[in-house]
Amino acid sequence: MTKRDFLALEDWAPAEIDALLALAARVKRGEITGGLERKVLAMVFMDPSLRTRTSFETAMFLHGGHAVVLEPGRGSWSLETEPGAVMDRDSVEHIVDAARVLGRYADAVGVRSFPRGRDWSEAREDAVIRSFARHCEKPVINLESARRHPCQALADAMTLKEKLGETSGKRFVLTWAWHPKALPTAVPASAALAAASLGMEIVIARPPGFELDPEDTALIRRVAQQSGGEFVHIIDDPDDATVGADAVYVKSWGSVKLYGNPQEEAAQRAALRDWRLTPARLKSTRGGRGIVMHCLPVRRNVEIDDAVLDGPNSVVVDQAENRLHAQRALLLELIGGSTT
Amino acid sequence: MTKRDFLALEDWAPAEIDALLALAARVKRGEITGGLERKVLAMVFMDPSLRTRTSFETAMFLHGGHAVVLEPGRGSWSLETEPGAVMDRDSVEHIVDAARVLGRYADAVGVRSFPRGRDWSEAREDAVIRSFARHCEKPVINLESARRHPCQALADAMTLKEKLGETSGKRFVLTWAWHPKALPTAVPASAALAAASLGMEIVIARPPGFELDPEDTALIRRVAQQSGGEFVHIIDDPDDATVGADAVYVKSWGSVKLYGNPQEEAAQRAALRDWRLTPARLKSTRGGRGIVMHCLPVRRNVEIDDAVLDGPNSVVVDQAENRLHAQRALLLELIGGSTT
Amino acid sequence: MTKRDFLALEDWAPAEIDALLALAARVKRGEITGGLERKVLAMVFMDPSLRTRTSFETAMFLHGGHAVVLEPGRGSWSLETEPGAVMDRDSVEHIVDAARVLGRYADAVGVRSFPRGRDWSEAREDAVIRSFARHCEKPVINLESARRHPCQALADAMTLKEKLGETSGKRFVLTWAWHPKALPTAVPASAALAAASLGMEIVIARPPGFELDPEDTALIRRVAQQSGGEFVHIIDDPDDATVGADAVYVKSWGSVKLYGNPQEEAAQRAALRDWRLTPARLKSTRGGRGIVMHCLPVRRNVEIDDAVLDGPNSVVVDQAENRLHAQRALLLELIGGSTT
Repeated sequence: MTKRDFLALEDWAPAEIDALLALAARVKRGEITGGLERKVLAMVFMDPSLRTRTSFETAMFLHGGHAVVLEPGRGSWSLETEPGAVMDRDSVEHIVDAARVLGRYADAVGVRSFPRGRDWSEAREDAVIRSFARHCEKPVINLESARRHPCQALADAMTLKEKLGETSGKRFVLTWAWHPKALPTAVPASAALAAASLGMEIVIARPPGFELDPEDTALIRRVAQQSGGEFVHIIDDPDDATVGADAVYVKSWGSVKLYGNPQEEAAQRAALRDWRLTPARLKSTRGGRGIVMHCLPVRRNVEIDDAVLDGPNSVVVDQAENRLHAQRALLLELIGGSTT
Repeated sequence: MTKRDFLALEDWAPAEIDALLALAARVKRGEITGGLERKVLAMVFMDPSLRTRTSFETAMFLHGGHAVVLEPGRGSWSLETEPGAVMDRDSVEHIVDAARVLGRYADAVGVRSFPRGRDWSEAREDAVIRSFARHCEKPVINLESARRHPCQALADAMTLKEKLGETSGKRFVLTWAWHPKALPTAVPASAALAAASLGMEIVIARPPGFELDPEDTALIRRVAQQSGGEFVHIIDDPDDATVGADAVYVKSWGSVKLYGNPQEEAAQRAALRDWRLTPARLKSTRGGRGIVMHCLPVRRNVEIDDAVLDGPNSVVVDQAENRLHAQRALLLELIGGSTT
Repeated sequence: MTKRDFLALEDWAPAEIDALLALAARVKRGEITGGLERKVLAMVFMDPSLRTRTSFETAMFLHGGHAVVLEPGRGSWSLETEPGAVMDRDSVEHIVDAARVLGRYADAVGVRSFPRGRDWSEAREDAVIRSFARHCEKPVINLESARRHPCQALADAMTLKEKLGETSGKRFVLTWAWHPKALPTAVPASAALAAASLGMEIVIARPPGFELDPEDTALIRRVAQQSGGEFVHIIDDPDDATVGADAVYVKSWGSVKLYGNPQEEAAQRAALRDWRLTPARLKSTRGGRGIVMHCLPVRRNVEIDDAVLDGPNSVVVDQAENRLHAQRALLLELIGGSTT
């Protein structure tokens, strides 16, 4: 089989990602119509979505195609993910069969499955999305898994290029923020990878104990170096985080080290409410003009203050809009026919 | 910005509503195809729907467009509505951000948000829909808020014109009915406004204590007078309600006075099960031929007897059908391109 | 009214079913495009779905139409099914009104409503789907009721013809399997009827006490005889079941006799975990080459072993794919215009 999946940004060669971004820019300028006539995208959401769902459904429609939305455990059957399972409990359908069947109905299949919070050594394998891709004969798109959110990363890269022009050597700060829940690391890891692939200087600011998975940190460093960028340092203090930044990507995530231990994780997180992007911290960005990014949904006045989100530095709405254009390009690349 | 919202019938000038109704009639006769090609309507349902959802989705499709359905708190994120909220609790996304983002993906955004039953002085401000409209750069359509259901009102006006021909001076009776729940006043207020705008004689029948919001009653009176109609009187007795009516609009609603006091409201409502449209009461309409309207869903044999709903006076199914045609006209007006 | 419903395979004449299957084969070969432009299918799911929903939504789209998905009690209103009900409890809308209204918005309406497990003498009447069909002015399609799943049966017949070529006289074995829940008999009854209509030799294997509804068994026998097939026998032992089979249809269902008595039913079922299609049993099919069918979702290693489902005899994914093509043919037949 020659089908192509989109499970993680780093699975595609840098030149391929560049080509996608160039196509996305053309799509955004309205230069391309059609290309997905009679094509169907099936999206399997095991977790909620607003942007992903709306932007993919709109993307398919704008080029003549159609997206079907399935919600296992709600409108659809709950899925078993364990290979070889003796299915005598609650799960009604095995992911192997769902993947095979949807591959017959649709031209591509998107899957969203957040980590379930039991054991990081297991969650980090991203078994659901990888199993789906293995058993589906059509391209599979990761709509956010335990480890990666490559569609968000694509939109992030597109936004960085749009807003900063030449990205080489510019400073990208990924900064942790407090949040009432322990969130996945898929977005921060993917965003930092996207910035690294653009040759930026990468800074990660987080409280001690909230490091990303070490393999992800190593990968971000390697990608940055290969792209002519640099992995500068890891910062412990929210007041130092934003200094000199061209782009500040605010995001909360839970402690990977305490992944299977939610009480202790919450206790450790409780003391960290000061990690919030305030107008004062924003001033410390390069010339006070650093752009502010967030994947949304954002907890206002908890992750980022209203004054920042509603001010001129914030590009979060453009970033969300770019999900649409980046995904139109992705779909055209994966399953598109002739465009006009 | 020059965008136009559709939040309440009275926000549009009478001539504009007339034009919409004329367009709806043409649409219904099949005279207009196309006009919504490549257009997307995003619908945000914070409460359930059958007619609204199906009729809007069909309306978009019939003219070449597409509707996306979002359900915050179920398939989508739960929304925070309080301005300036410190979002450290359950709500995942602020309505400000949802409104801005959906305005980038879609050409128009519909929002349904029923009142939440805490405090009428707050609910009557219709903050959710008005906040959505303020922060969304595209036209916002009210799919039923605490105060108004203007799409229903449009279909009601269309039905009254279809069934009664000349509406001036004909008698429109809005009559309360018992219901096991305290329902919102959006539909009765909107229906009476629609009838008032057609120059009809308006009668409102309800048990003492179940008056509409005084501002709505005053507005209905004013609109009736401006349109050459009349606000005749308020009636206390279900047996007197329907006498001489050309149209009887049956609808239940909860006491606005006891809005934040559900136990007392339910106790007061409990004694009122006799408020039900029966065949006997139907006979008292003008020549026994008064039409029977209801927005649906209707509690059979509780609000209206089976014999009435399934009899020749009932126009409830035509009324529901007119939702489709009225909304096709609305969408063509708000976001439509060239038609054929 | 001249509208046509599709509630059960046996409601249509054998020649009509043959014509549908021939059309489905042409559709699958890609010989037919268009035919459903500006057509809308409304699907009412009172129970979950993956295949039915995705395949119908895709079917409508591929021929230019659109499907709307409604889920009463979740995104839509909960439905009352009792005629004449005094609706003062939880159900918000009567099926009579939902059927009438959807018949105005859509060109066809699909309904899925599983049995509710109270009383078989009541459930076997299939009141929900029949009431919907009676009150809806447009064709109604059964998406699985208490008694029948005719769209599955159509796909099953199509698959049998594809895989076996000439079906006359070939042996079709419907074999019961253990399952943690008491499932409906709609699929097994419909599948056996489909095979019977193809002139096959019908064998039903099930544990004593798990007979199908006697009226269904009698109908299967009669259809087999009319089609030149034969109803051979009923088998009590899973090791004997598959001997000499050309096709083995594995399916679990609950005891109809103990329908209103779930504890006793579960106790009787508990001893029957050996009813499972294993590689050893598969070997006993004709030349070891009998095809293995299942409607999906399947409980792996409970109804059928992984080695069978993932082996060369299994046609379950082709069978699921044929849902799409059979339903495209059905929709073209019921509501289709000119094709190209």
